[in-house]
Amino acid sequence: MAYFDAASAAPLHPIARQALLAALDEGWADPARLYREGRRARVLLDAAREAAAEAVGCRPDELAFTPSGTRAVHTGIAGALAGRRRVGRHLIVSAVEHSSVLHSAEAHEAAGGSVGRVAVDRSGAVDPSAYAGALREDTALACLQSANHEVGTEQPVAEVAEVCRAAGVPLLVDAAQSLGWGPVDGDWSLLTASAHKWGGPSGVGLLVVRKGVRFSAQGPVDERESGRAPGFENLPAIVAAAASLRAVRAEAAAEAARLRELTERIRARVPRLVPDVEVVGHPVRRLPGVVTFSCLYVDGEALLHELDREGFSVSSGSSCTSSTLTPSHVLRAMGVLSEGNVRVSLPMGAAEEDVERFLEVLPGVVAAVRDKLGAPAAAAAVAREEDVLVVDSLGKRCPIPVIELAKVIGDVPVGGLVRVLSDDEAARLDIPAWCEMRNQEYVGEEPADRGTAYVVRRVA
Amino acid sequence: MAYFDAASAAPLHPIARQALLAALDEGWADPARLYREGRRARVLLDAAREAAAEAVGCRPDELAFTPSGTRAVHTGIAGALAGRRRVGRHLIVSAVEHSSVLHSAEAHEAAGGSVGRVAVDRSGAVDPSAYAGALREDTALACLQSANHEVGTEQPVAEVAEVCRAAGVPLLVDAAQSLGWGPVDGDWSLLTASAHKWGGPSGVGLLVVRKGVRFSAQGPVDERESGRAPGFENLPAIVAAAASLRAVRAEAAAEAARLRELTERIRARVPRLVPDVEVVGHPVRRLPGVVTFSCLYVDGEALLHELDREGFSVSSGSSCTSSTLTPSHVLRAMGVLSEGNVRVSLPMGAAEEDVERFLEVLPGVVAAVRDKLGAPAAAAAVAREEDVLVVDSLGKRCPIPVIELAKVIGDVPVGGLVRVLSDDEAARLDIPAWCEMRNQEYVGEEPADRGTAYVVRRVA
Repeated sequence: MAYFDAASAAPLHPIARQALLAALDEGWADPARLYREGRRARVLLDAAREAAAEAVGCRPDELAFTPSGTRAVHTGIAGALAGRRRVGRHLIVSAVEHSSVLHSAEAHEAAGGSVGRVAVDRSGAVDPSAYAGALREDTALACLQSANHEVGTEQPVAEVAEVCRAAGVPLLVDAAQSLGWGPVDGDWSLLTASAHKWGGPSGVGLLVVRKGVRFSAQGPVDERESGRAPGFENLPAIVAAAASLRAVRAEAAAEAARLRELTERIRARVPRLVPDVEVVGHPVRRLPGVVTFSCLYVDGEALLHELDREGFSVSSGSSCTSSTLTPSHVLRAMGVLSEGNVRVSLPMGAAEEDVERFLEVLPGVVAAVRDKLGAPAAAAAVAREEDVLVVDSLGKRCPIPVIELAKVIGDVPVGGLVRVLSDDEAARLDIPAWCEMRNQEYVGEEPADRGTAYVVRRVA
Repeated sequence: MAYFDAASAAPLHPIARQALLAALDEGWADPARLYREGRRARVLLDAAREAAAEAVGCRPDELAFTPSGTRAVHTGIAGALAGRRRVGRHLIVSAVEHSSVLHSAEAHEAAGGSVGRVAVDRSGAVDPSAYAGALREDTALACLQSANHEVGTEQPVAEVAEVCRAAGVPLLVDAAQSLGWGPVDGDWSLLTASAHKWGGPSGVGLLVVRKGVRFSAQGPVDERESGRAPGFENLPAIVAAAASLRAVRAEAAAEAARLRELTERIRARVPRLVPDVEVVGHPVRRLPGVVTFSCLYVDGEALLHELDREGFSVSSGSSCTSSTLTPSHVLRAMGVLSEGNVRVSLPMGAAEEDVERFLEVLPGVVAAVRDKLGAPAAAAAVAREEDVLVVDSLGKRCPIPVIELAKVIGDVPVGGLVRVLSDDEAARLDIPAWCEMRNQEYVGEEPADRGTAYVVRRVA
């Protein structure tokens, strides 16, 4: 059994476990109290803050512990926007931020603010000049992740921070995916992170607000954590979070090199082992442990299920594996294939033999899922309207529309058109992505009586 | 060494520790994921929710886990107010709620809402008819604690819930201090609690919203915990919280009887052992483990310090032990003495011999602090203006003004007046309370050139 979903939650680091156990005995009292148990708790809290601040590269009094990375993002964005309310109510985010950032942006819009969303290239990276172009007179805050959680692409944070600094706009960096690997470069203003991503316990996030950054915490006041995280401190978990951050940093350089080599094997070998696969994310500027690929003609949920049966825990940005039935916003923003999507994110200490076994079983698993889907695809309702072949995939879910398209493309002459009728949201992303992969021309989409018609011209 | 501050934070229950350790191994993954580690986490989360709901007396789908009791209160009040925004923006709270409730009320006022504050009697209890009187056409929500955190007085929740129900207004009950002892009676609509008050770990609160109660969660959306608690679930701590709630409930009846007897000893014997003491809080309708008293002529901070040296950890609502330099809002609302205030809150399992030793050392500790304060009091600046004795206590902190008053009261004839000049906020509470205790007449306060003049007539 191999757990390959560290980007969701990393297993608890042994040091985190030890520190948590020790702090359960020493750190359960209220650190605001003056008696011995309270003073002991305060000493632990202060030491944890110092250790975490050192790892981040900030002053201890700039760092607050929050109940999660999501809460750190919500509080950080709301507080920074309120602190610069006089400047304006414009917020900039990238299109591939974590949902906590995008949901904060939506809440800001619902409250009357405006939001600029910076596009990414096909690798998932933003261009610093796009941030420069998005900045306005009334921009109160810009947000950018240090690295993407779904495809591992590292963002040019230092360059974007420079652009923002020049305009006098604070930059909030969501460092959830990268903080275990090292501090975030550049002259950022706010930073957020989440302990359970680096092997710390759940229940702990970090919110760093640099001195001099205007910040006005929202919601009811509370004295704890500089007024930035109301409620009794989750002290044993905070102690464990800080201890494990220090521990993973000590191993980070060697482990990053090792995991990078393992993910490079996956990047290089999956396209050779499995036909019709697109590896997504930046090939070089990427997190050490994350590799993501999409498999044509495969149902993501079935793929995850089969991999789970083979002992591999991975995640997927395919529409059919999410509760919303829309493909991951990250894959959409990148314009890459979302069907049969698999994210492998190796935890620190992942075993080489597990990666090798994954590469061994993957081709068979993908082939089995494709075989199973072959049957309904054979029943594709194909009609010829004048010079256009029409594939009726209405009511069929991803990846069936693409499978049916692939089956008929050979039936039209070069230069001929295929219209795929689909009411599955994923088709909007996956049909153009298929065209890109198979060197066919994606003509565009048209409204249809039901669903949408996606028009493809056979080129090759 | 004896820890007598369970009302702040109870030491971790052994069952909580065991459950936490087990859940660290089984429950670190994302319960929203479909692979085995995620499914295992989901099973633990569901079981914890069922156990907690059973203890509360609600349906599992009515209960969300939050990062703390404070967050549960903030979220609960904001969500309930927003859910009934159409009805109006009037909120009712008692004057002795926890700061998380009062700070929520202040935030509501700052955002344009209105707040009615229901007074309490000298025991700290509200009168249900006062809630009835406070209800308005536009009342969106009423809040009442199940029992007070500083003096242990139980509130008439069921009666207030009845009054609210009749008016169609939801009642939110802050059950932080009582949930370990038993479910909250009555037809309440929302309930909040905090695991570290019953021996669970820090980092877990409960928010219960009854089906049918209009609720609109505020802030950025998030899929977790029915949209009521954003961020990755603090699962191992949630498991430990639920397991320990079940465990303390199994012991609750026997332990309540035992602790009630121990606190009754303190209630009865402290006034006999220590002169000039007022025991506060309801003598009968009270939490089993909490007893609070105030000692005239004593500096609360010095008292806590001396008790800590003797091995007793207690807390205080005296002004000089808080960061704000104002006496506890609870003691103020009750109109009782705040100086030399001590709250003893026994944890489950508190040893009888520790309570006996506390009663042994307390008289000496109080006497020593009073002795130490005798010296500055001797330097009281006393002047006679016509028929009034004037005590200048300007610049002197609680309890000096009361000590100086007590020293001179014998120097005026029966019927004569003493004017105490003080700029310490605590005097406003403590001089009337002293008069009540010593059967002297408190005439009232008058503005003075500096500070305030408190006028006392010698009666006895």
